[in-house]
Amino acid sequence: MKLSRILTIFIVLVVKSVFGYIVDPGPVVKATKGEIWPKPTTQVYGNTYSVIRPNNIKFQAVNTSCDLLEKAFDRYHKIINITANSQRRRLHTYPMSENATRHTKRYRTDPAFDGYLEIVDVNLKSACDHLPYLGMDEAYDLEVREGRAEITSYSVWGILRGLESFTQAIFIQPESGILRINSTMIYDRPRFSHRGLLVDTSRHFISVCKLIKILDGMAFNKLNVFHWHIVDDHSFPYQSITFPELSEKGAFHPEGMIYSQEDVQRIIEEARLRGIRVLVEFDTPGHTRSWGNSHPEILTPCYGSYEGKYGPLDPTKDTTYEFLRQLFREIVNVFPEQYIHLGGDEVGFECWESNPDIREYMKVNRIFTFEALEEKFIQKIVDDVQLLNHSSIVWQEVFSNGVKLPKGTVVHVWTGNRQLLLNSITSKGLPALLSSCWYLDHLSTGGDWRKYYNCDPHDFNGSDEQKRLVYGGEACMWAEVVDDHNILSRIFPRVSATAEKLWSQQDVTDIDEAARRLEEHTCRMIIRGIPAQPPNGPGFCL
Amino acid sequence: MKLSRILTIFIVLVVKSVFGYIVDPGPVVKATKGEIWPKPTTQVYGNTYSVIRPNNIKFQAVNTSCDLLEKAFDRYHKIINITANSQRRRLHTYPMSENATRHTKRYRTDPAFDGYLEIVDVNLKSACDHLPYLGMDEAYDLEVREGRAEITSYSVWGILRGLESFTQAIFIQPESGILRINSTMIYDRPRFSHRGLLVDTSRHFISVCKLIKILDGMAFNKLNVFHWHIVDDHSFPYQSITFPELSEKGAFHPEGMIYSQEDVQRIIEEARLRGIRVLVEFDTPGHTRSWGNSHPEILTPCYGSYEGKYGPLDPTKDTTYEFLRQLFREIVNVFPEQYIHLGGDEVGFECWESNPDIREYMKVNRIFTFEALEEKFIQKIVDDVQLLNHSSIVWQEVFSNGVKLPKGTVVHVWTGNRQLLLNSITSKGLPALLSSCWYLDHLSTGGDWRKYYNCDPHDFNGSDEQKRLVYGGEACMWAEVVDDHNILSRIFPRVSATAEKLWSQQDVTDIDEAARRLEEHTCRMIIRGIPAQPPNGPGFCL
Repeated sequence: MKLSRILTIFIVLVVKSVFGYIVDPGPVVKATKGEIWPKPTTQVYGNTYSVIRPNNIKFQAVNTSCDLLEKAFDRYHKIINITANSQRRRLHTYPMSENATRHTKRYRTDPAFDGYLEIVDVNLKSACDHLPYLGMDEAYDLEVREGRAEITSYSVWGILRGLESFTQAIFIQPESGILRINSTMIYDRPRFSHRGLLVDTSRHFISVCKLIKILDGMAFNKLNVFHWHIVDDHSFPYQSITFPELSEKGAFHPEGMIYSQEDVQRIIEEARLRGIRVLVEFDTPGHTRSWGNSHPEILTPCYGSYEGKYGPLDPTKDTTYEFLRQLFREIVNVFPEQYIHLGGDEVGFECWESNPDIREYMKVNRIFTFEALEEKFIQKIVDDVQLLNHSSIVWQEVFSNGVKLPKGTVVHVWTGNRQLLLNSITSKGLPALLSSCWYLDHLSTGGDWRKYYNCDPHDFNGSDEQKRLVYGGEACMWAEVVDDHNILSRIFPRVSATAEKLWSQQDVTDIDEAARRLEEHTCRMIIRGIPAQPPNGPGFCL
Repeated sequence: MKLSRILTIFIVLVVKSVFGYIVDPGPVVKATKGEIWPKPTTQVYGNTYSVIRPNNIKFQAVNTSCDLLEKAFDRYHKIINITANSQRRRLHTYPMSENATRHTKRYRTDPAFDGYLEIVDVNLKSACDHLPYLGMDEAYDLEVREGRAEITSYSVWGILRGLESFTQAIFIQPESGILRINSTMIYDRPRFSHRGLLVDTSRHFISVCKLIKILDGMAFNKLNVFHWHIVDDHSFPYQSITFPELSEKGAFHPEGMIYSQEDVQRIIEEARLRGIRVLVEFDTPGHTRSWGNSHPEILTPCYGSYEGKYGPLDPTKDTTYEFLRQLFREIVNVFPEQYIHLGGDEVGFECWESNPDIREYMKVNRIFTFEALEEKFIQKIVDDVQLLNHSSIVWQEVFSNGVKLPKGTVVHVWTGNRQLLLNSITSKGLPALLSSCWYLDHLSTGGDWRKYYNCDPHDFNGSDEQKRLVYGGEACMWAEVVDDHNILSRIFPRVSATAEKLWSQQDVTDIDEAARRLEEHTCRMIIRGIPAQPPNGPGFCL
């Protein structure tokens, strides 16, 4: 680690001293053509290619099918059309049609030309699952040759990933404007099963329309967990059935800046169609200030120099637990996902400490530290969730503060020394998620996907068994300084770095090769409607 | 400086230790209502207010008028309508009309209600200028009382600034949805006459449509110089009349990613209508690599370890100067602005040093340093521009390398110790511009307008005469990692900090007061079609 750092500095110095202000014109990174992001497990190319006419291509289920699959066919058919149209627009603006005709004539006599690809056989070798889940099978094979393509998988989720790869392999030949795909054989499966993106919708309200765009962009990166950090201190946009007053008084606007039950179901459905789980987080006992707009009685009133302020949930009152039991009973009904994220991060003790009732309670109950008080609280919540037959994910503080966690509770690392934490969590037999190296709200001049790309969730000391307990990770889009106007370009393509680290094999580390693919992938996302920002310095998308 | 830094750290620590994780719900900064950005020189409020019905308000020239003024009336009339509609949309989505009716009834009997404001008298006390210029008069008075408003100025540019302030003073009363303006008296004039924004259109191509949005946003911040860094190493999008091959071969796309003469004239016209000068930069002798795609003969071929590369313009050949003379002759015809920015930054000497012809030339001509060679080059270009009856602006290196600059040549500070540089430039009697503290491509986590806000161009040791030589400054949007998808939210509202430092009085330094106005100003820009990013952490615009 230290050596590689020294090496990097050395290389930078050498490059600077060798090239100084001597640069080449044009884009600094040349985009690939038809390469796949994230990089597949195995891919070999043939020597031939097929041409695709967007109106003459058809996805055809050769085995079982279902609504989810048919809708995916529609979606990817549209994507092929959008790709073709982006080129048609270009041809229209800058007339090159003569050129195009010449090229069309040329490839027909090209020995490498395999013909027109008109049928994509989709071979799903099982019944369709209804809902995505942790550990679902996402492996698929893709074969393109002799003017035919076949996507094979034992799971509908694998088929979705295969459709994504298939459409990514299609590219526009710039000289002619035709859509082309090279003959290829792909065997592909993810390295980690939990590949997420956290989106905070409390610090700024993010509209349903942008959230669906985010789901779209996630699918383009084979991400499979939408971690919805739905409420927090600043606002409570979730419109609860049981406690509608929470958003009525806690949202930035009681009608215009909330997620109705209909909105939530729409998000869940759009995510499901893309093989994405919706993991909702109701962070407690801290980060709950907005709950107090309608339910001050569940928060801790602060005293002394904090007089008039409210702190975390009050862990000493039965009513707090009863309130949470009712809320969580609703949540497990609304969100079909097996896991609930319970938060548990950044609980400040100042307010508890200032409150005489809390101190008295601790004395009576022989609780000697605030960590122990927090432990008692989280313990109850985790137990309640278990009683509801659901599983919990908690932020790392819960583990660090020594809460006895039921087997299978996932610990989510977001700060500090990730190597030590991952080792320590997994050595206790608990599963872990990594986020600390993938904070999308952290900004640095000149772009930073390379920094994200240099983080591997298995880069810690631990046995094979421990490594297996790392389920994956998540990039985090905390929303202090993003809203509808800049969230998409802030997330994409930076999250793509995280996506590749979580999908591709551990030995996929060639960052310059990745840069060329990411240059293409960014333009691809833009064509598909995601306003992704430039990843690599000077350049352009046609 | 050092003390203030220690103080800042101290305050941060105190605040953290006092409040820790105890936060309030809702937006962290509460927006003002109808406050003006940048803050006017003097503003006093009355106790009454008027109500504006967008269909019943009329700007009326009570003295001279002209096309430029009439077009401004149209533009600001539209803005009042857009503001009203943004509210109507809200009322439609979240039906509050009953409330609104109740409120309408209420203000009619309110003793503070001055009536409906239907006429804005625009009193221009001179003929209209055709073109904005350095040092133009932008002072104006604005009076709103007893249901009437009057904007007075001795210059059409002052009227434009007054119209901007007038429409900013109009705000929506949230409870009723009505447009309201408080009675007020404003005397306002800018502190600095050069208030610019540099936009780099070479590292990424920025479409004409986005550039016009940028001009719009500049007008909303009373900025008055669009510094168009139009070409650079990576691409040459300017379609020259004399040398069309420059963009034919040097643009990212010869037809789709260029600025035609028509595009350039459109930008100049849209800028003129907003009282914005278009200051074009053709940076030489470095940053010219894309010129070599069509004219390699004017660049320096590198030798040795840089074999095959090209360096800066070749300063030893007459053909280079002849080429530039022709190009600049075109430029002064195309761009009506008195000043041309000649660049002169970051000239690397490695390539010149590697080239035996250059070394031989230097020997023969007894030029002993590369700085002196660069000096010789710039000297010629500056002289040529003077012969064309135009004035030059150069980056600081030209000054630091000791080029003898004609009186009035402006030196533009972009890096290093700004205090020392400003002192040193102005002590030589040369005018200066400041940019080094306003680099919009430099990013930091959590937003950074406060950093920009803490930079004052007069914060250096120097006589009053020296201070007067600081014409102002520019925020710089270098485009390595921005393109059409993120440039607007990257510029706005961060550039607003620069705009206020350059317009408002030196004693306008209350950053928390500014934060509240900026919160409002950001939402105002969003309503007017600029996708500005959140300035202050958690919050929302309705």
